[in-house]
Amino acid sequence: MLVDDAPNPQLFSEDLSSFAPTLVTPSIPGPRSLQLKSDLHETGQQAAAVIIFNDHQQCQGNFTVDADGNRILDLFNHIATIPVGYNHERMKKLVQSEHFQSLVLNRPALGVVPNLEFAQESRTLLSIAPKGLTKVQTMLCGSSANENAFKVAHYWKAKMMREKQGLGGDEFTQEELESCMLNESPGSPNRSILSFEMGFHGRTAGTLSATRSKAIHKVDVPAFDWPVTPFPHIQHPMDDPQNIVSNTKEEDRALASLNDLLSQRSESISALIVEPILSEGGDLHASPRFFKGVRDITRKHGVMMIVDEVQTGLGATGKLWAHEHWNLSEADSPDLMTFAKKCQLGGYFFRPEFAVEGNMRIFNTWMGEPTKIALLEEILHIIEDEKLLDRVQHVGNILQKGLQSLAEDFPNELSQPRGQGTFCAIDAQQLDLVHSKLLQRGILVGKCGSNAIRLRPSLIFEEGHAKFFLREFRSIMEDIAAV
Amino acid sequence: MLVDDAPNPQLFSEDLSSFAPTLVTPSIPGPRSLQLKSDLHETGQQAAAVIIFNDHQQCQGNFTVDADGNRILDLFNHIATIPVGYNHERMKKLVQSEHFQSLVLNRPALGVVPNLEFAQESRTLLSIAPKGLTKVQTMLCGSSANENAFKVAHYWKAKMMREKQGLGGDEFTQEELESCMLNESPGSPNRSILSFEMGFHGRTAGTLSATRSKAIHKVDVPAFDWPVTPFPHIQHPMDDPQNIVSNTKEEDRALASLNDLLSQRSESISALIVEPILSEGGDLHASPRFFKGVRDITRKHGVMMIVDEVQTGLGATGKLWAHEHWNLSEADSPDLMTFAKKCQLGGYFFRPEFAVEGNMRIFNTWMGEPTKIALLEEILHIIEDEKLLDRVQHVGNILQKGLQSLAEDFPNELSQPRGQGTFCAIDAQQLDLVHSKLLQRGILVGKCGSNAIRLRPSLIFEEGHAKFFLREFRSIMEDIAAV
Repeated sequence: MLVDDAPNPQLFSEDLSSFAPTLVTPSIPGPRSLQLKSDLHETGQQAAAVIIFNDHQQCQGNFTVDADGNRILDLFNHIATIPVGYNHERMKKLVQSEHFQSLVLNRPALGVVPNLEFAQESRTLLSIAPKGLTKVQTMLCGSSANENAFKVAHYWKAKMMREKQGLGGDEFTQEELESCMLNESPGSPNRSILSFEMGFHGRTAGTLSATRSKAIHKVDVPAFDWPVTPFPHIQHPMDDPQNIVSNTKEEDRALASLNDLLSQRSESISALIVEPILSEGGDLHASPRFFKGVRDITRKHGVMMIVDEVQTGLGATGKLWAHEHWNLSEADSPDLMTFAKKCQLGGYFFRPEFAVEGNMRIFNTWMGEPTKIALLEEILHIIEDEKLLDRVQHVGNILQKGLQSLAEDFPNELSQPRGQGTFCAIDAQQLDLVHSKLLQRGILVGKCGSNAIRLRPSLIFEEGHAKFFLREFRSIMEDIAAV
Repeated sequence: MLVDDAPNPQLFSEDLSSFAPTLVTPSIPGPRSLQLKSDLHETGQQAAAVIIFNDHQQCQGNFTVDADGNRILDLFNHIATIPVGYNHERMKKLVQSEHFQSLVLNRPALGVVPNLEFAQESRTLLSIAPKGLTKVQTMLCGSSANENAFKVAHYWKAKMMREKQGLGGDEFTQEELESCMLNESPGSPNRSILSFEMGFHGRTAGTLSATRSKAIHKVDVPAFDWPVTPFPHIQHPMDDPQNIVSNTKEEDRALASLNDLLSQRSESISALIVEPILSEGGDLHASPRFFKGVRDITRKHGVMMIVDEVQTGLGATGKLWAHEHWNLSEADSPDLMTFAKKCQLGGYFFRPEFAVEGNMRIFNTWMGEPTKIALLEEILHIIEDEKLLDRVQHVGNILQKGLQSLAEDFPNELSQPRGQGTFCAIDAQQLDLVHSKLLQRGILVGKCGSNAIRLRPSLIFEEGHAKFFLREFRSIMEDIAAV
């Protein structure tokens, strides 16, 4: 295409210099990051995916500063884990407090001897519980959140099946107690977690069995023989009238597949797990209507519905939890929702009827970490005081429109612009080239799926940053298209 | 027995008041801990196993202070996770430093954008690597350490099997890449991790499949069809000449079982995992000769040997790593050793030939946490400067002799006194009663297996604390025996 004429002259004339990176090495990563990467690899640590090293004391707001002194606009934020930017003044104050420091030093085993404040801290977590999920359980990370969510589902299903047979739900039979010690049925039942094609839920044995993102994540690792069901292939923009028609058909096809599968084997399936936006799989979206359908079908067949908000959670979609965009009633809410990443620690909210009674069934050494809850609590105050959800919606609109305009202007190079809030993505024909050219301009973005650029700015990402990013993105696309 | 006459009058006359707890409520847990437990349960958090709540700012050294103000002598230390006691002055200084606080605030995704110091921190970890295991990989907790150790083993085995077939080790076949997306063989191979009866390795799907401690840990959760092999039933004290004869026979029986199993199906077994002392399973010991036998048999059959030092590691046995007591040569060392708990973060050391090359095969969001490495680094300095390994050996001798004397004096109530360093246990006929009576005296100990009292004092546990504990233990045993 002809690109001599910028389509949005105002965007290009605006002074965005205060939103610009500052680069000091001719290329990124610079020599110091490269040397550190080689040093790190030497020690045995996985370093193949390391992009740059960061100088945590120098980072500020939306800018990470790398080992070579480059000040880089961060739209990836440590795999979407930094909610209010780097070195926020209020967060600094928190970690300087004696109370916080004492929590750091005396890390409790929360299942045995919790800290004094733990019940109160748990109530704070409940203040952000999604509708209907009035109970919470903390863990350390996303994988452990999902692994334990699976256990909750298996316990619930086993209890239900025993009750169906006229037994007490928690009255294990002698055969169950003995066979489980040999990993044999009925004590270790042949039950599964159903997941969607391209879903990602972690890399431990249970969560990896539900992960369907990429072969390299899975090959050579034993997996449970768990079923998989198709996720709809949606065309973007989703509000395009023509796309609405075809997307609805596609979603119906996926819902029918799900219904067929559960009609055949719901007794062996404890739960279905789904991300509101399939993130590692390529930022795959579906409509609220689709998710409502999933809810109805799982309930009809007695299968628990787990929503995995490890990556989508805590505000980046413009709501605290992405599944709130589905607008379900309290009665129709999912049964359990897992969180981690931006929340600083893992865990899950759940409906009271899924509470696991008894001792040592959901348990591990640390069961979460109070310092992380203290950080999250302050993050929540900042989100509220700085009205960050409003900002995400506003800046997200700019980002989404910008991506759409880029896709229109570079139809051979870019496609499928999509997003909710600032949680955005676009497919790039030459993914690695685009990623690397952005990095050379001092902009760090993520990748996901087979060919998507994924944007995971922090919640304090401003209009100016978005405009600067879009301007630079356009400029490198002009370079690429001109070749 | 007659207990009027104390067997060690010196112990009883010594002034140990400075090592004594200070109790302010008539019973423990006091009303505030009980109220908090009920509050915590209300929120959904697992609270059934909570003993007391602790007031982290008041705790000091070997004493935890509970929500009611009771100052309790802690021989359990948050499931063996507190290495240098509560609120150590040097640790306090560390967390007050700007550098540390900045690490807390800017938690990196270590696999993508690590902090500046991460290569150096990894070298610090390597300074405590056990013999032969010259590479390190960090994780967050013990379960993720073991889950990833299993993946290392599966990758290695799959590579070896491909090479046997004349293929490149990392040249996945198209069939493997496609079948793994359906959780089917050959991409998701039917390979296993072999573990010992009564072994405990975690509660996530993979590690739980290798865990054989208690039915309640396993029942209702799907498990891999992985094999199990008997652990020898050892009589204590192990240096008793009669016990040596019978224990040797018993160990030979277990080694023969292991050899038989691996002779039949070594191709489907990637690794064997074993704790140097089977901790959750009941503090079960075996001789160095036994572990040397395990090493020889696994190597003969091409099965990796993983040592799980999550609970035994970092000094409590009198050596930094418990398996160092086996005195194996560098060539005979295990292939991989996992750690967590006292180390503050999880991870593993491994032989260079088990390095996983390629991208995204060992990976997750955080891959450990730099603040925890910083804490560990200071802990290592304290261990060295305060000569804590010497202290553990000295105090451990007193503890072990004291337990032996108690077992001799209360043969109907206590048996099998055992330990290495201060990592000690003794079987109690009335386990819950003994545990509770100790707690009422202001002494917190752990339980493990079906009837063991387990002692997990911190490394700064002193002779006076040991003597005070033994005196109180004797006194409650006198009460119990008198009934």
